[in-house]
Amino acid sequence: MRALRVGDGGAALVEVAVPEARDEALVRVTLSGVCNTDLEIARGYAGFRGTVGHEFVGVVEDDGGGPLPRGTRVVGEINAGCGACALCAAGDPRHCATRTVLGIVGRDGAHADYLRLPARNLIAVPPSISDEAAVFVEPLAAACGVLERCPMTPATRVAVIGDGKLGLLCALVLAAHRLAPVLVGKHYAKLAIARARGIETSSIDAARARGRAFDVVVEASGGASGFELALDLLRPQGTLVLKSTFHGATPIDAARVVVEEIQVVGSRCGRFAPALELLARNAVDVTSLVSEVMSLGHGERALERAAAPGVLKVLLGRD
Amino acid sequence: MRALRVGDGGAALVEVAVPEARDEALVRVTLSGVCNTDLEIARGYAGFRGTVGHEFVGVVEDDGGGPLPRGTRVVGEINAGCGACALCAAGDPRHCATRTVLGIVGRDGAHADYLRLPARNLIAVPPSISDEAAVFVEPLAAACGVLERCPMTPATRVAVIGDGKLGLLCALVLAAHRLAPVLVGKHYAKLAIARARGIETSSIDAARARGRAFDVVVEASGGASGFELALDLLRPQGTLVLKSTFHGATPIDAARVVVEEIQVVGSRCGRFAPALELLARNAVDVTSLVSEVMSLGHGERALERAAAPGVLKVLLGRD
Repeated sequence: MRALRVGDGGAALVEVAVPEARDEALVRVTLSGVCNTDLEIARGYAGFRGTVGHEFVGVVEDDGGGPLPRGTRVVGEINAGCGACALCAAGDPRHCATRTVLGIVGRDGAHADYLRLPARNLIAVPPSISDEAAVFVEPLAAACGVLERCPMTPATRVAVIGDGKLGLLCALVLAAHRLAPVLVGKHYAKLAIARARGIETSSIDAARARGRAFDVVVEASGGASGFELALDLLRPQGTLVLKSTFHGATPIDAARVVVEEIQVVGSRCGRFAPALELLARNAVDVTSLVSEVMSLGHGERALERAAAPGVLKVLLGRD
Repeated sequence: MRALRVGDGGAALVEVAVPEARDEALVRVTLSGVCNTDLEIARGYAGFRGTVGHEFVGVVEDDGGGPLPRGTRVVGEINAGCGACALCAAGDPRHCATRTVLGIVGRDGAHADYLRLPARNLIAVPPSISDEAAVFVEPLAAACGVLERCPMTPATRVAVIGDGKLGLLCALVLAAHRLAPVLVGKHYAKLAIARARGIETSSIDAARARGRAFDVVVEASGGASGFELALDLLRPQGTLVLKSTFHGATPIDAARVVVEEIQVVGSRCGRFAPALELLARNAVDVTSLVSEVMSLGHGERALERAAAPGVLKVLLGRD
């Protein structure tokens, strides 16, 4: 089978054997999505070597002893826990100390014709959700994770910094929960996607000019300057939800966090169930984020395209 | 009167006029405490010029129209709000946007023979509390502020990083609330003060060897390395209470905050009432932190002493 693998010299599409299911389920991937994390991994982040990709929809090929029979259309939670520790026993392997993570930590990922995951990680996709929408469930779950870590009410004044994929998804998810986020960014075309869904948008300067008017700011710009901007927008004792993973040491004015008594909440993965529920009732128009659908056969080029300015989601089909 | 003032060339004891009460209360200072913030201000932090000092106990000289008559022994909240904004109206001027802060922001401080504060900032000191204990109410309130920002239960596994004044007070306050903090530091004599009160202490290496065993870590070391250590000690989704104000940009591995979904909670000032209550029932032995009592007449030397290794609280009397 084909697999987009990261080694010493960046990413390359290579031919490898189809993995054996053994004690896990085998999934034939139908569609996978390119995440910025894939690009960072291809640049050497986190030292991962193997097949990249963690956003997918596919069809069960071998049930791996699980309840979803062969032929079931599925998505899959990317954190594979040990299954035995207290966190896993409580049904949340996202912080299991010995977890592997699909296409990120110790486990081959989704930009391939087949992938393996524990059967318990798979979730059936309702027929009402298209493949093009279902492939967004992982990043959409990450956006939903903001509310898991920082509950809000309609009275919460919330801004999202960053008009890339993550920022747009966060804004769309908040709006779908009857909140009124202000999306702060600098790219007209990207902000327009949010505006088309009735979401207020703002330039960085205009957001600063409001004078620390926000109770919650979600930092999803991917740039370290977003942290400082968030502190400029937040009221004293406000909450900064940190979604972006900046690499390396980020210079931060930590004294401001203390003096203004800010709460900084890290947020990474979310649960799939709320994201699937949003997709099932068509509450979030994720396909408006698709810039291009390419073939896995052009996987290397797809990574390049995904890194180009103005490009949002690049999907990889299996034709 | 005498006043320890900060100008271009560090701190100097000078003779100035006794301030007029005008629309505020006038307090004759009996005893003031040297805080690390005083030392930082003397080095030019925050651009403050004027009389330093914000920890004091004194006697009302002019009631300033307030309910506490002349002769009342008082302490005083250091944040003087505008009295009109929503925060002030709610009784909490600590984040009033136009506040002054005693000896820190736009208001002469406590290392003088007299000081002014709004009458509403003053709180009477019960007779059971000595001057030597009452002068600790401000830093003790800051330590109590940890629980205001991060409520804990006896089951909470909590560590305090830093065996200086702030760390010791935090550990003492947590212990007084039936919590079982582990104080992490590297100075035998300072840790011994906590041990004498039944508090468990640990070296940095031994704390790390516990393997991320803490739900909450209070960073009170004053050093940027404390932030990284805190991340090493915290379980995933744990809470880091940031008490230290590091100056300038601190390099922080923000990606760890996201990946481990840590909550970082800034904590600065606390309310005086819970601190006075702790002192009144003798639940915290603050006087064990006193290294020296000097005279205001030796104020410049007192700042030097307070900065010396191994020295904890230096108090300034008014003889």
